[in-house]
Amino acid sequence: MDRFIDIISRINIFSNFTKGELLKIFGNTSYHIKEYSKGTLIRNSGERVEEFMILVDGQVITEMVDFNGKSLEIERIKAPDILASALLFAKENYLPVDVIAATNVTLICIEKKYLIKSFKENSDFLLSFLEDIGEKFLFVAEKLRMNTFNTIRDKFTMYLLNLYNQQNKSIELKIPLTLEELSNLFGIERPSLSRVISEMQKEGLFEKNGDRIILKKLKK
Amino acid sequence: MDRFIDIISRINIFSNFTKGELLKIFGNTSYHIKEYSKGTLIRNSGERVEEFMILVDGQVITEMVDFNGKSLEIERIKAPDILASALLFAKENYLPVDVIAATNVTLICIEKKYLIKSFKENSDFLLSFLEDIGEKFLFVAEKLRMNTFNTIRDKFTMYLLNLYNQQNKSIELKIPLTLEELSNLFGIERPSLSRVISEMQKEGLFEKNGDRIILKKLKK
Repeated sequence: MDRFIDIISRINIFSNFTKGELLKIFGNTSYHIKEYSKGTLIRNSGERVEEFMILVDGQVITEMVDFNGKSLEIERIKAPDILASALLFAKENYLPVDVIAATNVTLICIEKKYLIKSFKENSDFLLSFLEDIGEKFLFVAEKLRMNTFNTIRDKFTMYLLNLYNQQNKSIELKIPLTLEELSNLFGIERPSLSRVISEMQKEGLFEKNGDRIILKKLKK
Repeated sequence: MDRFIDIISRINIFSNFTKGELLKIFGNTSYHIKEYSKGTLIRNSGERVEEFMILVDGQVITEMVDFNGKSLEIERIKAPDILASALLFAKENYLPVDVIAATNVTLICIEKKYLIKSFKENSDFLLSFLEDIGEKFLFVAEKLRMNTFNTIRDKFTMYLLNLYNQQNKSIELKIPLTLEELSNLFGIERPSLSRVISEMQKEGLFEKNGDRIILKKLKK
């Protein structure tokens, strides 16, 4: 396990722990290290997700088969990351995709019951897991909300309005996301976002300075 | 507490427990019952969410203030329900909305630390909470995915494709959602969905019988 600790500590859920703490978490639980060679089918669509899967080496792709039997690549996931963590505790925890090793792959798998046991022994681990799911949920929910606005200008304005309300209606806002993350949130390319922000600034709607924005005459 | 148990047991998270089990969970934790009269500001935007809030009586509305100081109603939530559970464990747990009592309102509030303690004492309660967040996450993620398809026909076809992959590529599918839930998932009106399903059935793409669909010559 020791050889994976550095890698694991780069994953969000585990990033608050020291190496000693991580060794203790994994020392007190039951896990399997599984290796798959390139091209192997790691998990079949239709299978239930019953293990917490940590991708510690390599890349996987997820694929769906269409009604004609043709495979469609859905997503490519690179180590280190967690696989299918939202499905793990859902009632309908059936995988909608095949998971295939795009390179040689190493997974660390913890069965759900041992993960729960670990949560009971270590509240910080549970909190970290809940925090991660919470953040992912908020991001997806916010992305969905952003989808209802048509123009980039509207998206950015409504994003700022959210911050304005979260940050005690102060006209000086701190933007917690990078431009890259904001573009992802809006589902657009980064240069398009940069251009719109420049335009809005030129029109005197706000002043942007690094991650600070001072509202001038922004209205919706 | 006894008088609220029936109400609480109608909330998803608590629906797997008997009344006796619920009384035990609430008997072993520390909670407050808070009452608000109609029109009261229950929570201010910008506040951190540090309590698990169960709405057991009445209705609340959530509002945002726009840059001109004008209030916009965002959502109306009716008892029984859980408030802001996704925010509770997020790092940036600042409320983006004001929460206002639309009627007389009763909340049962459990501080985060007591909720964690309760999770440690009762794995089933933790599992139920994780299951609830997992389901909500999957629903929002699926809704976001559905947003990328333009027509109702495309949405429904891609929804069926997902089920097809989850249900072992069988041509007989079981639809786990009601028409109402499907319309919500697709962000459309229910009659529009019914019409499209009838059309597709008439074209011989599939046969629908209650919550069963038999695929005939559906292609994407």
